[in-house]
Amino acid sequence: MQAPLKIGVAGLGTVGASVVRLIDRRANALSAACGRAITVQAVSARSRGRDRGLPLERLRWFDDPVALARDPGIDVFVELIGGEEGPAREAVTAALDAGKPVVTANKALLARHGVDLARRAEKAGVALNFEAAVAGGVPIVKTLREGLLGNTIERVYGILNGTCNYILSRMEAEGLSFEACLKDAQRLGYAEADPTFDVGGFDTAHKLAILTSLAFGTEIDAEAIHVEGITQITPADLAAADELGYRIKLLGVATRTEAGVEQRVHPTMVPKSAPIAQVNGVTNAVAIDADAVQELTLVGPGAGGEATASAVVGDITDIARGFRPAPFGVPAAELAKPARAPMQAHKGGYYVRLSVVDRPGAAAAIATRMAERAISLESIVQRRKGRVHGGDDPAKVAGSVPVILITYATTEAAIRAALEAMMSDGYIAETPQTIRIERE
Amino acid sequence: MQAPLKIGVAGLGTVGASVVRLIDRRANALSAACGRAITVQAVSARSRGRDRGLPLERLRWFDDPVALARDPGIDVFVELIGGEEGPAREAVTAALDAGKPVVTANKALLARHGVDLARRAEKAGVALNFEAAVAGGVPIVKTLREGLLGNTIERVYGILNGTCNYILSRMEAEGLSFEACLKDAQRLGYAEADPTFDVGGFDTAHKLAILTSLAFGTEIDAEAIHVEGITQITPADLAAADELGYRIKLLGVATRTEAGVEQRVHPTMVPKSAPIAQVNGVTNAVAIDADAVQELTLVGPGAGGEATASAVVGDITDIARGFRPAPFGVPAAELAKPARAPMQAHKGGYYVRLSVVDRPGAAAAIATRMAERAISLESIVQRRKGRVHGGDDPAKVAGSVPVILITYATTEAAIRAALEAMMSDGYIAETPQTIRIERE
Repeated sequence: MQAPLKIGVAGLGTVGASVVRLIDRRANALSAACGRAITVQAVSARSRGRDRGLPLERLRWFDDPVALARDPGIDVFVELIGGEEGPAREAVTAALDAGKPVVTANKALLARHGVDLARRAEKAGVALNFEAAVAGGVPIVKTLREGLLGNTIERVYGILNGTCNYILSRMEAEGLSFEACLKDAQRLGYAEADPTFDVGGFDTAHKLAILTSLAFGTEIDAEAIHVEGITQITPADLAAADELGYRIKLLGVATRTEAGVEQRVHPTMVPKSAPIAQVNGVTNAVAIDADAVQELTLVGPGAGGEATASAVVGDITDIARGFRPAPFGVPAAELAKPARAPMQAHKGGYYVRLSVVDRPGAAAAIATRMAERAISLESIVQRRKGRVHGGDDPAKVAGSVPVILITYATTEAAIRAALEAMMSDGYIAETPQTIRIERE
Repeated sequence: MQAPLKIGVAGLGTVGASVVRLIDRRANALSAACGRAITVQAVSARSRGRDRGLPLERLRWFDDPVALARDPGIDVFVELIGGEEGPAREAVTAALDAGKPVVTANKALLARHGVDLARRAEKAGVALNFEAAVAGGVPIVKTLREGLLGNTIERVYGILNGTCNYILSRMEAEGLSFEACLKDAQRLGYAEADPTFDVGGFDTAHKLAILTSLAFGTEIDAEAIHVEGITQITPADLAAADELGYRIKLLGVATRTEAGVEQRVHPTMVPKSAPIAQVNGVTNAVAIDADAVQELTLVGPGAGGEATASAVVGDITDIARGFRPAPFGVPAAELAKPARAPMQAHKGGYYVRLSVVDRPGAAAAIATRMAERAISLESIVQRRKGRVHGGDDPAKVAGSVPVILITYATTEAAIRAALEAMMSDGYIAETPQTIRIERE
């Protein structure tokens, strides 16, 4: 049996503390599976005094995570500090440059500096593993980086933020407003006091940037992602979606198109029959379309201390077993430069909710504007004034009638142009709501 | 860059031919990801003349798979012959004993000889990979063997046979009989001319035996599996399940219990809200309950040439990258001896469909027999004679009334004893139908 693998953990929040506990709890099993013991030797965190329920007296303490990363007494550096710059980046860089393998759950760091870090890892000949950075306990990084190498991947998409999925699930199930559900999410600890990062779609975008690189063999290109959050979704949208056979999910979607890779994060209508439509609450799901395997869907916990720690420990065991794939599947030097498909070129169906001014000619004007852009309509729903889908429409505007359109596949450019023309015609009482439709 | 990895493929059916094509199609990507080219050098199959659309003239041909397995010109032996004995076993054994890594999709071989083969692989210091043997293109072996090592697994269960799931899905959706759906499945190529292996649950049992070993670190113990197929399921059962909020799936289930590991394959009622209940048609799904990750569900194609080849190629790339975990996660010598939990000790809820003789005292007698065994009833459904769930009950027996009971958790022993007592009371017109309920 080889010498024990000595781990240093920087960051002792919920996930860090769970990692220390899991490694201890599974010591025998890990040792049997890896042919060597795995032990946490040293830790670093901001506050030494805080009670985390951990036997810290057995572990060496570092105030400075960079010093821990460079310490010759550890074999693997685990970064659970978070943040795309500052101590997390400094410590990970220091560890890799010192020839130590790194395990991290830091999606922001990877979305911003992933390729640079991969280059450093490859130069040092060590692993850089980050299963926990995307969809928590769901083994999607391993699946893309290892299991699906025989496939050309066409699309990867998923529910990557539990906070948003919790809010949308509650809104749908109970007909509540976004604001009410956000408050509940904050009370339950599913959302931060400043929820922008989650509900604005930025957390999903970080994770999507990583998935895109793994799926398509391209350099990470987080700046290219079209990002919309869920703050504008109303109960009326969810009710209309339900009636039309859809659910609304905040998805991150990356698709291979003729114009390049399209990356987008936005509220999306998915058919109720799609596996991803069944995923409610804080659960995450990732679906992959590929030429050989066709469709694969992974569903599981996207957050939580132990679930995320499960992914971190899996990454550590791969290192303990001597496995060292390139961080993004192919060596950083061979990642393709991203070819960005412009959002205006996006093709797909659209849900459009209009407040139409209640006077003659409105319907004809709308239909004409759609026809001018060659947009075909799959369905049109107009109910009697003031009532939509069996309830009062909170988005109702006085003197206007809510009209819901579902289009067949068109382009983002066409739908935007058609809506602008409608607005300037003066028949539309407020900014139209549009939600893209994602087919299975 | 290292020397190319030379592959020998034995068995050129749908999967074998797809493996040869995939490796060729993805040559550049595989080479970039693995740091070495992967090339098929030699093949073996029964009929050399058959047109498989493959460029066989570029490949060396072996009539004898054992000779291919031992050939010094190949680095990895891929076994896609099938069968638990005969040429498949001989060739795999020969390859391992010659120090060559093996990739196989052969669940029957592994269910019967997996531990022996793992010992040989470990002795030779080579990989034995079999992702394709369980749930086709779904990366469940990798997930259990690598990704979830930080977890103590409590239960693994799944829809592991596409034929059965296709038949049950059609029966449910269209109210058709088992026989009618089986015929359709045979016509579409989803079922063999002799369907016993699939519809009798034996194929599911082979796959479950492998999952059990991976999940619980125990020696494979296929003989311990309680196996029931789907041939006795009627449209009346599916309609009753629907009404009570369940679907019926053929599941393989392995659970850690106080009495040992319980392994069973049988038609199962699952709540409609369970992710696995949404899985229809030939698709497979595997769910895992574990202490750290909680619940993880993987859904994808369980069969098909390219999907299965995707898993085979993934296994080959792990070998090309120098990864060599123990075949069953821990070395064969450290696998625990299986502690079989007897089926009579199984705990869970039951669906019971009775044909009750239509005379006074029947209901009281049934209730008494249940009470004697301390079985509590969650629901009782009795409809007017001759009509159950809005349609004629094909299982209706003249002079009898169909009664459906759902029990709270009890034991297999208790329910069997209660039903036997009812039968001997003379109030039951035919053998009761029982279906176990699996909670989320």
